[in-house]
Formats: sequence, C-alpha cells, structure tokens
Amino acid sequence: MFEAAELGRKLTKAEYRELEPVLREQLLLTQSALQKANIPLYILLEGADSTCKGEVVNLLNQWFDTRGLIVNGFGPKTDEEARRPRFWRYWRNFPSRGQIGVFYGTWYTGELIKRATGKQEKDEFDSHMQRIEQTETLLSLDGALILKFWLHTSESDLKKNLCNVLKAEGKGWVGAPADQHILKNYRRFIKAAERAVRLSDQVMAPWFLIEAGNDRYRNATLVRTVIETVQKRLGDLKETQQKHRRKSDKLLGNKLLLSDDATIKVLDQVDLTSSLEKKDYEKRLEELQSELNQLSWRAYHQGISMILVFEGWDAAGKGGAIRRIMQAVDARIARVISIAAPTDEEKSHHYLWRFWRHVPVAGRHTIYDRSWYGRVLVERVEGFASELEWRRAYSEINDFEEQIGARGNVLLKFWLHIDKDEQLERFKAREDIPYKNYKITDEDWRNRERWQDYENAVHDMVVRTSTDFAPWTLVAANSKHYARIRVLETVCEGLKKALDNAED
Amino acid sequence: MFEAAELGRKLTKAEYRELEPVLREQLLLTQSALQKANIPLYILLEGADSTCKGEVVNLLNQWFDTRGLIVNGFGPKTDEEARRPRFWRYWRNFPSRGQIGVFYGTWYTGELIKRATGKQEKDEFDSHMQRIEQTETLLSLDGALILKFWLHTSESDLKKNLCNVLKAEGKGWVGAPADQHILKNYRRFIKAAERAVRLSDQVMAPWFLIEAGNDRYRNATLVRTVIETVQKRLGDLKETQQKHRRKSDKLLGNKLLLSDDATIKVLDQVDLTSSLEKKDYEKRLEELQSELNQLSWRAYHQGISMILVFEGWDAAGKGGAIRRIMQAVDARIARVISIAAPTDEEKSHHYLWRFWRHVPVAGRHTIYDRSWYGRVLVERVEGFASELEWRRAYSEINDFEEQIGARGNVLLKFWLHIDKDEQLERFKAREDIPYKNYKITDEDWRNRERWQDYENAVHDMVVRTSTDFAPWTLVAANSKHYARIRVLETVCEGLKKALDNAED
Repeated sequence: MFEAAELGRKLTKAEYRELEPVLREQLLLTQSALQKANIPLYILLEGADSTCKGEVVNLLNQWFDTRGLIVNGFGPKTDEEARRPRFWRYWRNFPSRGQIGVFYGTWYTGELIKRATGKQEKDEFDSHMQRIEQTETLLSLDGALILKFWLHTSESDLKKNLCNVLKAEGKGWVGAPADQHILKNYRRFIKAAERAVRLSDQVMAPWFLIEAGNDRYRNATLVRTVIETVQKRLGDLKETQQKHRRKSDKLLGNKLLLSDDATIKVLDQVDLTSSLEKKDYEKRLEELQSELNQLSWRAYHQGISMILVFEGWDAAGKGGAIRRIMQAVDARIARVISIAAPTDEEKSHHYLWRFWRHVPVAGRHTIYDRSWYGRVLVERVEGFASELEWRRAYSEINDFEEQIGARGNVLLKFWLHIDKDEQLERFKAREDIPYKNYKITDEDWRNRERWQDYENAVHDMVVRTSTDFAPWTLVAANSKHYARIRVLETVCEGLKKALDNAED
Repeated sequence: MFEAAELGRKLTKAEYRELEPVLREQLLLTQSALQKANIPLYILLEGADSTCKGEVVNLLNQWFDTRGLIVNGFGPKTDEEARRPRFWRYWRNFPSRGQIGVFYGTWYTGELIKRATGKQEKDEFDSHMQRIEQTETLLSLDGALILKFWLHTSESDLKKNLCNVLKAEGKGWVGAPADQHILKNYRRFIKAAERAVRLSDQVMAPWFLIEAGNDRYRNATLVRTVIETVQKRLGDLKETQQKHRRKSDKLLGNKLLLSDDATIKVLDQVDLTSSLEKKDYEKRLEELQSELNQLSWRAYHQGISMILVFEGWDAAGKGGAIRRIMQAVDARIARVISIAAPTDEEKSHHYLWRFWRHVPVAGRHTIYDRSWYGRVLVERVEGFASELEWRRAYSEINDFEEQIGARGNVLLKFWLHIDKDEQLERFKAREDIPYKNYKITDEDWRNRERWQDYENAVHDMVVRTSTDFAPWTLVAANSKHYARIRVLETVCEGLKKALDNAED
C-alpha cells in the first residue's frame, strides 16, 4: 500500500518559496472558518519517523494561529491514566468545538509499535482498531473533522534520519528509542500500519498517505490537504444537513408506526403491587447493608469498581435508594454524581465527554443519580437531540459502557418504576415538607404530562441497552421498602459475582 | 490546647434521637441557602483517628443532599500531581461556588504526619503552614467559607479504636497504617497539630475543636457548628459587603492622590527609539534561536520548566515575539496558552483557578499570551474587579508565581511597550490584510481610549509584582526587530542561569 509514497516526489526551494505565503494565508483563513462554524478539527500524524512528525508539528504550530490550537502527544501512561479505561487519556485531550487538536503520537502509535515488536496478538490489535473506529465515528457524527496523515518514510531514509539524530548532540528527543525499535522491525511495523489504515480508513475520518522523503513536498502536500479537505467539508455542510434532515424525517415515519404497533412495553411487565412489611424491610436492610459494606471493601482492595446508574420517574425514590446504598458503602471509596445541566465546556464537546471526564479510577465506586441516558430520555422527548442523534446514542452508550465496565468492573442500571397515581401523591407530599420543597419544580409537573412519550423512550432504552456487561433492572417502586431492598439485593448479587470471577 | 476536648462530654441515645431530625432539616436548609448565595463551603476534617474522620464523612454524606457535595481525601500523590507545584492537587479539587467540599485528609494531614514522625524540620513545616494560610485567605476573600474541625481523640481512645479496627475483619481501611504511625508518635503529633492550629487559625478560616470521644456528641456538635457558622456568615454577608464598599472607597481616595503625585512612571523610562538593522536582526535571530533550542532541550531533560508571560499594548507584537520563540522551541515540549474569556466553570471558582488548572508538568515549557495579569490590567481598568479585589491580587499573584516558579523553574514576564502613534499605524495596517483582519476588533479601539488608565495600571503592576523569582522585562517594541531580539536574549539568559544553578 505504501509503495505509492516512495516515488521521490520533491519541491524545489523556489517552488516552495512561492507556495508558502499562499498556503499560510489559506491555512489561517481555514482556521478562522472552522472557528466560525464551531467545528473541531483533529489532525493525526503517524509514521515511522518521529523527527519527521516533530517537524510537521512545529510547522503547524507556527502556521496556525496558536489561539485554539492544542498539540498533544501520548507517551507512556501516567498512573492516573493507567487506572482508568484505556480511552480516557484520549477523551481528556479531545479538542472542543472550534479548536484544532494536533496529535503526534495518537491512539494508533502504541498499538503499531506493540504489534511490530511482537507484543500484541492480531486479535487484540484488531479489536483495538475496532474501538478506534467506533470512537472516530462517534466524534465525526457529532461534527468533528478527523484527518489522519501517514507520513511515509522509506526504510533507507529512516535509517539515514536516525543516524543524523543520534549524531546531533543535545537534540536527543525522547522518541528516538521508539524509532530504533521501529527501524529494527520496519517490515512488521509497515505491515501493522497497512492493516491499521485498512481497518480504520473511513469516509468520515480518512487516511492520507503523504510521501515524506522531501520536507518541502511533505509540508506543502499536507497543508494543502488540510485546507482542501476542510474547505470541501465546510462547503458540503449545508447540503449534508439538509440530507440528514430528509433521512431523519423518513426514519421518524417508520418509527412512529413501529412504536404504535408495539403494544406491550417492558414497563407493563413490572408488578407494581410488590411490597414489603416494615419489620421485614428493616431486618433485610440491615443484613444487605452489612453485606454490601464488606463486598464494597473487598472490591476496592481488588481494584474492582462498582458503577451504578439510577434512572426513573420523578419522585420514584432514586434519592432514597441511593442513600440506602451510601449508608453501607464508605464515602471515602464511593461517590454519588448527580447529573445536572452541562456546563459550557461540556456543551462544547461530544455529549459523552462529560461522563468520560469523571470516570472513576479503578476500585472507586460511583453512583450516578441520572446519567448519560438523558440523551435517549429527556433529550429525545423534549427534542433537544435530533432523532438521528438519539438513535445513534444507543450504540454509542453500549460502547461506552463496555469500556467503563471492562477489567471486571460491575455496571448495573436501575429504572425505578411507579405509576401516575403514586407520583401525584408523592408530589403533593413533597410540597408540604419545607426541606423537601426544593425537590419539586414546575418541570416535574411538565414532565408528568409527557408520561406516554417517556414510557416509549424507556421501552426503547431498556430494549436497546440491556447488555450482559451492563444489564437494566426494572424495579417496582410503588413500595419504597420493596424497591430499596430489590436494589440492594441486585447490587450485592452483582458484586459477589464479579468478585467470584476475579478470584477464579 | 487540646485538653479542653478531653472532658468526657456525651449525648445519650435519647437526646441524640431528639436532636437528629432537627439538625438534619436545618443542615439541608443551610445547604440550600449556600447554593442560593452561590458560596462555596469547605469542611476540613482533621484528627488522629481516621476511623473517626471516616464516620463523620459518612454522616455528612448522608445528611447533606449529595447534589453539589464533593468528598475528597488526599492520599499519596499521583505522578501527575508529583510533577506539578505542591498545591496543584488541592486547587484541582476545590469546590465551585454553591458546592460543598468535604475534605478528610487535607492540606494539613501529610505535614502533621511528617512532622510527628520526624521527617520534616520545623522551618519547612512553618513555611508550609504559611502557604496554607495564604491560600485559605485568598479563598476566603473570594467568598469561600472554610470550616476546619479538629476531631480530638485522646491517646487511650485512639489505642482502643485502633485495636477494634484491626480486629474487625474485612474493614481494613487503607488509613489504618497512618493511624499506627500517629499512635506511636502521639505526643509529637499533638504538638505539631497544636502548632498548625495556632499558625492557621484565622477569623476567615477558623478551627473548631470537637471532642470526639462520644460519637453522638461529636456528630451533633460538628453539625450544629456548621449550621450556626454558616447561618451567621450568611446573615453577616450583607453587612460585610457594605463595610467593604466603604473601606474600598477610602482606599480609592488615597490611591488617586498617590497616582497623581507619582509623575514618573516605569514606562517613561523605556527608550522607544531602540531599533535594529535587518541584517543584524537576522543574524542575531538565528544565533539566539539555535541557542534557545539547545537550552530548552537541556531544561526539558532536567525537569526544569520555562514559563513566559507576555503582556503589552494591543498590536505591540506579542504574537510575533512568541512565534520567534516557538520557532526555536520544539512544539512537543512547549505550549502556547492564549488567554481568552473564562468559561462558566472557571468563573465559578477563584480567578486563579483557571491558571492553576493548566499548570504544566515539570520540564514542559509554557508561554502565556496574556495571563493572570488581566486581573490588575483590564479587570481593573474596566471595573470588572473591585478595587479591593485587584489590590489584593498583587500579593496573590506573587504567591502564585512563587509556587509555579519553584523547583528551579524559570519564570519571566514581558511587557511589550509601544507608543500611541505606532499603535495607530499598526491598527490601520492590520485592517488592510485579510488574514490579519480578525485580529483587530472594536474592543481594541476602545482600549486605546483608556491609554492613560492602562499606563497607571501597568506602572503599579510592574512595581508590585517584579520579584527576584519572577522579574518583569519592559521591552521597547516600536521596532519589532529590536523587541524580538531583546525577548530572546532575556529568555536565553534566564534559562542559562537556571541551568547553571541546577548543575551546581
């Protein structure tokens, strides 16, 4: 595949001198157009030669306006990164809308080197590539432009460049040892790269092969590609948006029919008459809390995180259930995260960014009082997310949960279900207690009017996001006692299973 | 000092049962009043017994509404923390306005243990206490409420509790080893604690001594103290604000007189006729850039950061000077941070928080295009900060710079000075070049009208924040060539000196 980039293409000094001012001006105009359009641009630089990547980074850093430009390289993981899901370190460095992120050392680099040096099996490599593809797709669909450049250096050029680096005193960039590994395994490295490019070359996030033997040719070609691709995308943008709208309308039509047809909803199967005597409740509560306390400490010591998600109707008792858990789990190893409106920094990223941001380190437990499911519940019902957006959210969420649930973590999700009459009674009761007063707002009354819409949304959510690594539990919550016990039992069971698996 | 907390005070179960609902309700009301008043509350828990601290953390976690409550403990530093100034880990966990931060394991803990176990000299301990005092003062003046609780456990109780912990299986909280150290050095620990309390007990951030021998008494007393102190502060708030205003008016009167009297301003001494021939410029530029490249790599390898701050009149050539530096310093070890308007997350913290947030790790170089000096320049001139606020900013900034400049880092600050005629010419030129067009806005023209106010502000800034660890260099910038060379020379000199010191 890469032979096409060993043709010896060049630019003379004179040609380059003529091109440079034009390219620089166009690049600045492109940058300001991106800012206006509020689009994040990702520029990924890959290749065998780290000096070459370094030169391009420096070029971009000088030619772009540094305002809104962020240069990122990923070296060895810090311990904060090592104790979180693999992609956390990338998410924390994604540019926000209107910013440009230049990445030398990317989510490909480590995998290519591991594969080239025989430290990674093909299956693992492929599965990492698949995860990359998912992530890039998710960002692209959210409006990001991702341009991936393979700066190709032939084996002989690489050898020459590396010698020069080693000779030049005081220039010892830390990347040099990696280059030596690559040179030693050049053919395997290129083979891995070809596979990576093949698996991850997408319309939305394309690879560009740049011949890097001649600096001037390389610079000019790369910059021209950036300018042209971005300009084209910006031009297409309006058209695309219109197309999306049409496509979306069509989907909507189909879906409405489907929803009407599906007369049996998952929530209908919840037996709301379930209840529990006070005496039984208190006894069982004490037993379960004591068990949960032990289990949560064991998990902590084993680096296993428990992640609990609570969703449910307003006044269904999420807070009460969460409090019963926190009575059992030590606050020093657990945290409740209540999801309110996103901040403006959060709004200027993909909607999952704010959840990635607070992904807990291994061994810490996290309880979400509402969660990323807002995307397919309130945002769907209120129309804050377009149909295309909330529809693709199901698989985005499944991928996200697979990642945070990895390494033996326990991820459990609860929908607390009550009926409309029960809700009304609770609303009224809340209005009468001064320190519960703040809990009931006009919004709660408004949501109530859209009960049926929410019911449809809950149905789809449960059907599409119940996975073996992150199952939903629908909890009958007309009886608070019953609901709390059911939640605690499910949590204890889940934790126990995970601990047993870990100890096997 | 702590004998007063060994009196054996108790609450009976019955007394506690009666108090609990009242306290809980009052606590929730207090929390919601804090949220409305947009005030951050810090609750620090200190003491010899980590089980006792843990119990209080769990109590607060259950009694407060978890929305807006953040529980923090500081254990061993992560490597990301170890590679930044000491207080960075605290700053990153400070609550925002309206939030409550509960800290068990605080900025005192490590120092107390080090001192008790003989791992820290008195001078170092005292200097750390002073830094804490500065930081707490700065937060308090910004509106934060800081309540510090010493939960006192007598030596015999501590021994008893520790035995119970060690006996109870599966409850092995990681804090236990620290407790054993403390028990072994109990008297020295208490002596260090008494000194810490004495040095850091402030009206704005007071210590409360709580007798912790009886859980019920401890809980009730602590919660009552929180409620009463917060309520009192909220009540005082209006009154205080009025007092501040009066005080501020008085200061203003004095200052205006002073400003009028001081006829010679630092900027008057800058020789704006300085210039440089193009040929000399090009030669010198190349020499200096090559030198800077070497120096910056050496500093990187030694973990020495270079931090450069650029301030100056609009169109004074900050961008051009910065670009000449970035041509020399590799973009992989350096970053330009352009300071724009703060985001809403940043606005909901102390104004220095957003600079703490991006403090680079050891060895990385950072160039600030505008900086924290906005507080005493634009915010002062435009009235965004009150006089009291910008006046105290001088010493806050000095303290901040002392911290980020520590460990041998190089911190240099440049004011690029041009005169009004030169600025006018540059504004006009910018308007004519399409890709420089965006650089000139109505705001620039408005700022120009307040030239005299800015000149006063610059004078005060330079006088009050030129320190030996972070000196200002006033650069004559009517000639761009001259200015760029002067900046590069100063940077090279500063780096060389720091490297020589480090190698001694």
